[in-house]
Amino acid sequence: MDSQSPDIQAAILTQALPYIRAFHGKTIVIKYGGNAMIDEDLKRAVVRDVLLMRYVGINPILVHGGGPEVSDAMRRMGKEPEFVGGLRVTDAETMEIVEMVLTGKTNKNIVALLNAEGGQEFGSGLAVGLSGKDANLLQAVQETGRGDIGFVGRINKTNPAILHTLAGAGYIPVVSSVAIGADGQSYNVNADTAAAAIAVAVGAAKLILLTDVEGLYRDFADKDSLISEITAAEARELLATGTLEAGMIPKLEACAEAVEDGVPRAHIIDGRRAHSLLIEVFTESGIGTMVVPAETGYRPLLV
Amino acid sequence: MDSQSPDIQAAILTQALPYIRAFHGKTIVIKYGGNAMIDEDLKRAVVRDVLLMRYVGINPILVHGGGPEVSDAMRRMGKEPEFVGGLRVTDAETMEIVEMVLTGKTNKNIVALLNAEGGQEFGSGLAVGLSGKDANLLQAVQETGRGDIGFVGRINKTNPAILHTLAGAGYIPVVSSVAIGADGQSYNVNADTAAAAIAVAVGAAKLILLTDVEGLYRDFADKDSLISEITAAEARELLATGTLEAGMIPKLEACAEAVEDGVPRAHIIDGRRAHSLLIEVFTESGIGTMVVPAETGYRPLLV
Amino acid sequence: MDSQSPDIQAAILTQALPYIRAFHGKTIVIKYGGNAMIDEDLKRAVVRDVLLMRYVGINPILVHGGGPEVSDAMRRMGKEPEFVGGLRVTDAETMEIVEMVLTGKTNKNIVALLNAEGGQEFGSGLAVGLSGKDANLLQAVQETGRGDIGFVGRINKTNPAILHTLAGAGYIPVVSSVAIGADGQSYNVNADTAAAAIAVAVGAAKLILLTDVEGLYRDFADKDSLISEITAAEARELLATGTLEAGMIPKLEACAEAVEDGVPRAHIIDGRRAHSLLIEVFTESGIGTMVVPAETGYRPLLV
Amino acid sequence: MDSQSPDIQAAILTQALPYIRAFHGKTIVIKYGGNAMIDEDLKRAVVRDVLLMRYVGINPILVHGGGPEVSDAMRRMGKEPEFVGGLRVTDAETMEIVEMVLTGKTNKNIVALLNAEGGQEFGSGLAVGLSGKDANLLQAVQETGRGDIGFVGRINKTNPAILHTLAGAGYIPVVSSVAIGADGQSYNVNADTAAAAIAVAVGAAKLILLTDVEGLYRDFADKDSLISEITAAEARELLATGTLEAGMIPKLEACAEAVEDGVPRAHIIDGRRAHSLLIEVFTESGIGTMVVPAETGYRPLLV
Amino acid sequence: MDSQSPDIQAAILTQALPYIRAFHGKTIVIKYGGNAMIDEDLKRAVVRDVLLMRYVGINPILVHGGGPEVSDAMRRMGKEPEFVGGLRVTDAETMEIVEMVLTGKTNKNIVALLNAEGGQEFGSGLAVGLSGKDANLLQAVQETGRGDIGFVGRINKTNPAILHTLAGAGYIPVVSSVAIGADGQSYNVNADTAAAAIAVAVGAAKLILLTDVEGLYRDFADKDSLISEITAAEARELLATGTLEAGMIPKLEACAEAVEDGVPRAHIIDGRRAHSLLIEVFTESGIGTMVVPAETGYRPLLV
Amino acid sequence: MDSQSPDIQAAILTQALPYIRAFHGKTIVIKYGGNAMIDEDLKRAVVRDVLLMRYVGINPILVHGGGPEVSDAMRRMGKEPEFVGGLRVTDAETMEIVEMVLTGKTNKNIVALLNAEGGQEFGSGLAVGLSGKDANLLQAVQETGRGDIGFVGRINKTNPAILHTLAGAGYIPVVSSVAIGADGQSYNVNADTAAAAIAVAVGAAKLILLTDVEGLYRDFADKDSLISEITAAEARELLATGTLEAGMIPKLEACAEAVEDGVPRAHIIDGRRAHSLLIEVFTESGIGTMVVPAETGYRPLLV
Repeated sequence: MDSQSPDIQAAILTQALPYIRAFHGKTIVIKYGGNAMIDEDLKRAVVRDVLLMRYVGINPILVHGGGPEVSDAMRRMGKEPEFVGGLRVTDAETMEIVEMVLTGKTNKNIVALLNAEGGQEFGSGLAVGLSGKDANLLQAVQETGRGDIGFVGRINKTNPAILHTLAGAGYIPVVSSVAIGADGQSYNVNADTAAAAIAVAVGAAKLILLTDVEGLYRDFADKDSLISEITAAEARELLATGTLEAGMIPKLEACAEAVEDGVPRAHIIDGRRAHSLLIEVFTESGIGTMVVPAETGYRPLLV
Repeated sequence: MDSQSPDIQAAILTQALPYIRAFHGKTIVIKYGGNAMIDEDLKRAVVRDVLLMRYVGINPILVHGGGPEVSDAMRRMGKEPEFVGGLRVTDAETMEIVEMVLTGKTNKNIVALLNAEGGQEFGSGLAVGLSGKDANLLQAVQETGRGDIGFVGRINKTNPAILHTLAGAGYIPVVSSVAIGADGQSYNVNADTAAAAIAVAVGAAKLILLTDVEGLYRDFADKDSLISEITAAEARELLATGTLEAGMIPKLEACAEAVEDGVPRAHIIDGRRAHSLLIEVFTESGIGTMVVPAETGYRPLLV
Repeated sequence: MDSQSPDIQAAILTQALPYIRAFHGKTIVIKYGGNAMIDEDLKRAVVRDVLLMRYVGINPILVHGGGPEVSDAMRRMGKEPEFVGGLRVTDAETMEIVEMVLTGKTNKNIVALLNAEGGQEFGSGLAVGLSGKDANLLQAVQETGRGDIGFVGRINKTNPAILHTLAGAGYIPVVSSVAIGADGQSYNVNADTAAAAIAVAVGAAKLILLTDVEGLYRDFADKDSLISEITAAEARELLATGTLEAGMIPKLEACAEAVEDGVPRAHIIDGRRAHSLLIEVFTESGIGTMVVPAETGYRPLLV
Repeated sequence: MDSQSPDIQAAILTQALPYIRAFHGKTIVIKYGGNAMIDEDLKRAVVRDVLLMRYVGINPILVHGGGPEVSDAMRRMGKEPEFVGGLRVTDAETMEIVEMVLTGKTNKNIVALLNAEGGQEFGSGLAVGLSGKDANLLQAVQETGRGDIGFVGRINKTNPAILHTLAGAGYIPVVSSVAIGADGQSYNVNADTAAAAIAVAVGAAKLILLTDVEGLYRDFADKDSLISEITAAEARELLATGTLEAGMIPKLEACAEAVEDGVPRAHIIDGRRAHSLLIEVFTESGIGTMVVPAETGYRPLLV
Repeated sequence: MDSQSPDIQAAILTQALPYIRAFHGKTIVIKYGGNAMIDEDLKRAVVRDVLLMRYVGINPILVHGGGPEVSDAMRRMGKEPEFVGGLRVTDAETMEIVEMVLTGKTNKNIVALLNAEGGQEFGSGLAVGLSGKDANLLQAVQETGRGDIGFVGRINKTNPAILHTLAGAGYIPVVSSVAIGADGQSYNVNADTAAAAIAVAVGAAKLILLTDVEGLYRDFADKDSLISEITAAEARELLATGTLEAGMIPKLEACAEAVEDGVPRAHIIDGRRAHSLLIEVFTESGIGTMVVPAETGYRPLLV
Repeated sequence: MDSQSPDIQAAILTQALPYIRAFHGKTIVIKYGGNAMIDEDLKRAVVRDVLLMRYVGINPILVHGGGPEVSDAMRRMGKEPEFVGGLRVTDAETMEIVEMVLTGKTNKNIVALLNAEGGQEFGSGLAVGLSGKDANLLQAVQETGRGDIGFVGRINKTNPAILHTLAGAGYIPVVSSVAIGADGQSYNVNADTAAAAIAVAVGAAKLILLTDVEGLYRDFADKDSLISEITAAEARELLATGTLEAGMIPKLEACAEAVEDGVPRAHIIDGRRAHSLLIEVFTESGIGTMVVPAETGYRPLLV
């Protein structure tokens, strides 16, 4: 596509105008994960998409987990990862590894990538990494009723002031999915849920979950059953049927929760497609699945 | 080009990143004129280019004249336009017509076009029309030594505070080439020169003149002699040869003056090509002729 | 009166104290028209009155039409003005002339007069001319039900942000009575009505209409029947009687509307009397007719 | 003069325009004293003059002494006032009386008068009384070399920040001529000198001393020898002649010092004439004697 | 105690942490009086306590009367002080003395003491003295129904804006208990009441009255009957019994009134004990008597 | 010491006054390390000291390394730590472990401790952890000429804007000693040096290194040779002798460099003593060794 003529390049830029206008000054929370966090080309594409958002006046906030890197580090420390019902069994040692990997490695890699592209002399657009422990951003209590899975937490309070401070000064916050308990204990929290909680707390215009699927299927086996738009109420019904594949459940729950708590649009999109963020935000071809408060017909620009 | 896939659209958007970053917060003064102010498609393209600049954090300022519309109105009022050495002979009645047409018609048409595209509920991005008389923006003395051509003025002072006020509040200023004398007399001033004076006064990063030629030719008859880059000193030499075609002289003088007074880059570009503004500012294919302080090699991003 | 002793001058200045105090920081919208816009001495007096308001901390906004100059220009272009029910029949060509004259000539003459008196090196107090098209200030739909009178508009929306931007930076806005339609069409709107709409939109403390009569007469033939104070409700009753002379109707309607929509005081005063603005605002001799929300007794200082 | 017609009143108001414009945002320090502080009508006139200054955007600062009231209080306490070379012999008990009278009585009377006229619900324009001890505004060392006169001080340092705080919030500071020593001792300082020191410290545009004479006479016996304008250097020469009457010496010294230290104009005017402050500041009839940095011809507006 | 080791000093500093945190940014109004205003060591201790509050981010406001000094000055002027029901009979001459002493002497002594300790080059922390007449801070009507006691006033209005201006700029306001009437008359007001009125007006977190007793006794004769905590309602009941000693009545009334009008805590503490202010505010040993809105158990940190 | 009477507590608080005043609004950079980062009581003491600084208006910035925890984690991953000349040999895998431990574990533990003590509902005083990669805070090039020790870096650039953003909003920044290269490579940098670089970059009033010794000894074997004060030049001489024990070298170099680059005071103090930070900053008993620009005599308050 580098072979596009400058005239076509210019024409395409102007097609993004209404979207740039609509999201100017708004906050978009992006759950970053899956292949888009592993494949080098996809990583670079995400970084550019996020920087473009920032430069056109949007406040992007990235939230990430990092399961595979955690399991990898655990094995290097001679500890076999164990899961119950999709949740990592998190004893004290595991929690320490989770935190070191997510906050000390994954987070800083994302920050460094953004800063390498973002340019050092530019006043704004630099990334700052946080864990949920910084400024008490994400506060949690122990998850109970899911069996004995250790220090897995459920977010019960957020303190988003630090995000406003950073975004207001032009920085891009990058948040790892570690939370702090009232007792000082660290908790491992689901990154989709953390992203939803942050989107609600900061009054985001959009929550976007980057996944490794095209979106939500009514019937996962039937690739023609992709759902373009679904209301939060319908999402709850679908969740209640118990027929969804396991990986999609926390994602759809996060979207439903965000929308129920005031985020106008939550999206599950395909992170394996380069620039899927830009396609979702800046083109008329909305992609993946959009969760909305009520049935709307497709109106991608409503903010 | 609407047939481009969203993926290509997104990829192209990200290619504009370094240019958006480089000009963020900078001011670009655009002399708007020629076909780009007549042809409906070109007009729409210019408007979108300017809005895009505004939305990505650039402060664009438009300066315009409007020769053909003035001559037209004069004839409707039974007055035959007359020119001496390319300058309109401007008696009192003509001056009144010049002012009414430029400020009351041409200016407001541009303003209305920008506002129609710019969207009414958006806080910033709306256009506000000014003449050089508003807030004493452009102040002039009578041009002498060019024969008896009446109220043709030479800008001798600018008061750019109103431009900072408007740009600071997110508006797009559109300025007609009418100036005020210390004696309260209105003066007809050259729009290229007015644009250069404003670019200097506001500390613009670029002055761009939209023309009806591809750029400056070393030999106008030889279309292969287009000059990509020229220093202000070389421009002065070229002007001194007396071989340039008449229409190019004030444009090249305006560019040389702007660069000599501190504007880092002045451009003469082809307004007949749709989105030539965006191509110049946001792609690596710089177009037309660029006047620079000193020989540089082509470095479009130096600001 | 220049023969007044400095002692008397000083004493008179102090008598203005309570009025200066009362209107400090308030906005006063002035419909400028009639003889006060034609007679050179009166023009100078108005300009000084407005500047004095500005210097003592009031935000004055001028709104003007300019009927006679429009008719004049039309005739020069070989077009005979035509009126139906007091409204100018405004075909496309007429609309263009209206706009050129009001915005390109009348408006800039007022601006230039203010700036000539206001002094160039003073930070604030400079005038900036606007039409209703600038920053979508005045938005209109076509007036229907008054016969086929072309592009005569009725204001249906205002966007006063640009007035706050200018007044906040110390400028004096001068607005011509041209509005923009959602369809991009220019509309000729009544200047009294435009002034009232702006007074409401900016939360003005006063609307003052400069006219060529002493005020509102209960019986126009009886010069002793001048009404000093009238409530908006009484004004509506008076309008309903159908006995008012034609020229007064839109003025009284504008005042009633402004007061009904929250402006505490609307005044119809005699622009033929030099400094009538100052007399109304800064002396205890209120003049002309004041429209108020409810019967009050004469309390000129209530703001 | 209350019989003046409103038209004349309005005309006179506009004559003040250029002066209002010239002093807008400037600070004027006024030494208040003499008859203007005793006669009830003059007091009221001064108060109104000062409030008018404040309302038109000037920051007035009043500085006062209060000799007669101090002597009066001393006598009531059975202590006979004593003077050496025009300076009050100030033992510890006298100093206490000086301070109580100036700061606790004279100062608060002025404050109360201003606040009674200034109106209670108006945000700004209220007076606040200070002594030189508040916020270490006036700091002094003991005057030596004038004989044994006790706690008479010479100002050696000022801390004007509190004046900026008050003026910035719209208050009118009223300062009594009491200073604090580094040792915590109170000092009785000359009010003319204190006013000059404050004028220098705040960068005032004018220092005005209200006195009980018309101005400075070259020959006090010859009422025709009033000096309209004098340079600081000439003032120093005149002082060196030793021919000036005693009362004028500290006043002329204060003016010369202020002008030498950067205050553009210092005035000695006749406080017995009602509204002499306004006449000096707002009319073209400058009055009294003006001390300037260099010979100028009379240019009352130079600031 | 200067012999304390630095380690113990440091440990003690950290024990103040929760109190510093709790009162950061809050306002505390202190009625300064009694022995603490006479004894040199106690005076120095109070000054240091107040400065410490200021430096740790609290806004302290001091309010004072000064009975003994007034009586003393009266006698020196040959006037015998007279009291009716504990209130000073205040004829015109007495009022003048009251004002001179409180505002011109007592107030400035406190200001000078604070400024001597507070250091001159430090941006904030300097004291500024006010009487209730400054900026119309305390407004009063004549007290009636207590016999013919002259210009004794009851506060009926406050204008606390000046306190916000001063505190916001880092100054420490010191207020004497003199008020102004609508008629311009000065009034002698009770300092406890004045402090309560100011505490209510500024939304203080605490009102503290420094007295010469340990606190409120249920039975003054029984030193074991000291009341640590009492609700405003209980205080009113106690006042209604008529058994309280006279000196305590206005103090308890002031506390009850402050608490009823929204001040969360009002304290009567022993000013004869050095640093009693710090002990109350910064240690867990609350002292004296605390008046609260409702029964609480002792929770000194509730703000 | 909890047995101290409240009176003594209060007295001690006031002794800190001059120090609080002197450092109000200043920045103090603290290198946190050694026993003070391991012993639970010492950790709590440091946290309280830092919070107290913050509450009294100082901006503390913590910088830390964490050698023992890194070595520990390496061994758990089956990797033996290796040192050359006191520097950790840092291959790619080691660098990853360094970063995970310092940024993901040590840093967040400090942050959590501060936030647990700092209280969650208080607007300011919350800690935010950063690595040198966040917002390009610490930028480094590879250390060469110390043998092949891998990714050990030397700081060559800092971008302290993020520290101003955080401190300006009331947060306490905690920075781990990891830097970013222009090539995107992470570097392990010495924490003492990092603290010095940050102290210089933010214009700190003090740099304090917490160590496990009492200070700098002229002769380490002779505990009586502790140096209280040394100039930067003397420190350089001492370093040049080559007689210092290895652990002290980088610390003294960091202090010398900070002082040479404008930090007025750099301190090496004993972190094994509880509250040594407070003792140094808030008492007259300066402790440890102070490096100063030039010989001074002991003046702990010079800032």
